[in-house]
Amino acid sequence: MPKIIDSDERKKAIAQAVWSILSQQGISKVTIRNVAAQAGISTGSLSRSFANRMELVHYALELINEDANNRFQAYLASEPSALASVQFLESFLPLEPYALEASKVTVGMIAELSALPEIAPIAQGSLEQLQLLFREVLNLMDRQGELKAGLDLELESTQLVVLSYGLTVKALVAGKGSEPLNVSRIFRSQVNELLLEPVPYATDQELAELAEVSRSLALFKDSEN
Amino acid sequence: MPKIIDSDERKKAIAQAVWSILSQQGISKVTIRNVAAQAGISTGSLSRSFANRMELVHYALELINEDANNRFQAYLASEPSALASVQFLESFLPLEPYALEASKVTVGMIAELSALPEIAPIAQGSLEQLQLLFREVLNLMDRQGELKAGLDLELESTQLVVLSYGLTVKALVAGKGSEPLNVSRIFRSQVNELLLEPVPYATDQELAELAEVSRSLALFKDSEN
Repeated sequence: MPKIIDSDERKKAIAQAVWSILSQQGISKVTIRNVAAQAGISTGSLSRSFANRMELVHYALELINEDANNRFQAYLASEPSALASVQFLESFLPLEPYALEASKVTVGMIAELSALPEIAPIAQGSLEQLQLLFREVLNLMDRQGELKAGLDLELESTQLVVLSYGLTVKALVAGKGSEPLNVSRIFRSQVNELLLEPVPYATDQELAELAEVSRSLALFKDSEN
Repeated sequence: MPKIIDSDERKKAIAQAVWSILSQQGISKVTIRNVAAQAGISTGSLSRSFANRMELVHYALELINEDANNRFQAYLASEPSALASVQFLESFLPLEPYALEASKVTVGMIAELSALPEIAPIAQGSLEQLQLLFREVLNLMDRQGELKAGLDLELESTQLVVLSYGLTVKALVAGKGSEPLNVSRIFRSQVNELLLEPVPYATDQELAELAEVSRSLALFKDSEN
């Protein structure tokens, strides 16, 4: 375990430790002691920054939300094509190992909602943020003249968000029809109902390129094994 | 705890015990010992019928699948209207407490897939069965001339199944927009895209009546508290 030398590295190590425990052992194992051990720092040092499990989980998820917002700003600034918009929406689908890891954490938290009702606001906040992002993307596509006239964008963005949760479940269960190409196909066939000019279905190469982008997210780097 | 007196009651008590432990404590707590205690029978007696956890879980879920198939047969025999078909599909959504309970179990199992890979075939089987049922319902609606021409029914039934998983996630997380009326509205607005004549959105009274029907399912009766 490397010694943590500066504050930024320390933060990243803590977030990665929380993330790794969340995805492999569940939220009940996210304790000051376990996170400190996983991050290679002392319990005393960690407990000066975080009072309890919920603060640790909040912190790790805030970094995820921050990352989503940064990607959204970059997307907005890029004068995106319709395909780029669809790809941005798909970045929240479990099409590659890193997003699949994030999905596991989300589903694990949902499964523990009965036992740990205090995490409900976190789960609700994540879903509401996703809904807002999806809504903003449809708004932009509408302003760019890419959508059919007369759509109820609030309803349509809700449909797409709910579809994306469903595709997450499908990908986690795996089995027939849950290969990334097919998950993307189900999503795009729904999006294409809204578009004046449909986007083509993804190819293996396109998905590999998108996976390459998400691989650069620092938070996921150490959570693969 | 009532003494189990005959074989049918014994079976039901075992299935209810498995169900109750699954929904409240998760699959890792489904053990011969715990189920025997919950069902009020001896460990020795239970272990003569079931070798291990997986057999118990299989057994409880088989009863659910059997129930879904019975309801499907009754639905088929009823010469269903388009609305009755939509209501049948919605019976797999968490619109009332019993279905919400079933959803918790499903999501709990999905969350434990990494830790217990041996349950993957059960989860995959459930999803594939749902896909088959949805496909059969669309086929029937198509034969009855209720659907638009030229639809890809395989893709459309997949979309609806995936949407229903997503609505399950939404209902479990609760929060804004996950009230049963809204969950049904999201589902029906998607179904209505396929129908020549759209069905109306559900009312509180309609949902209450549907809940009454599902309340008669024996397996759920004791798992509410």
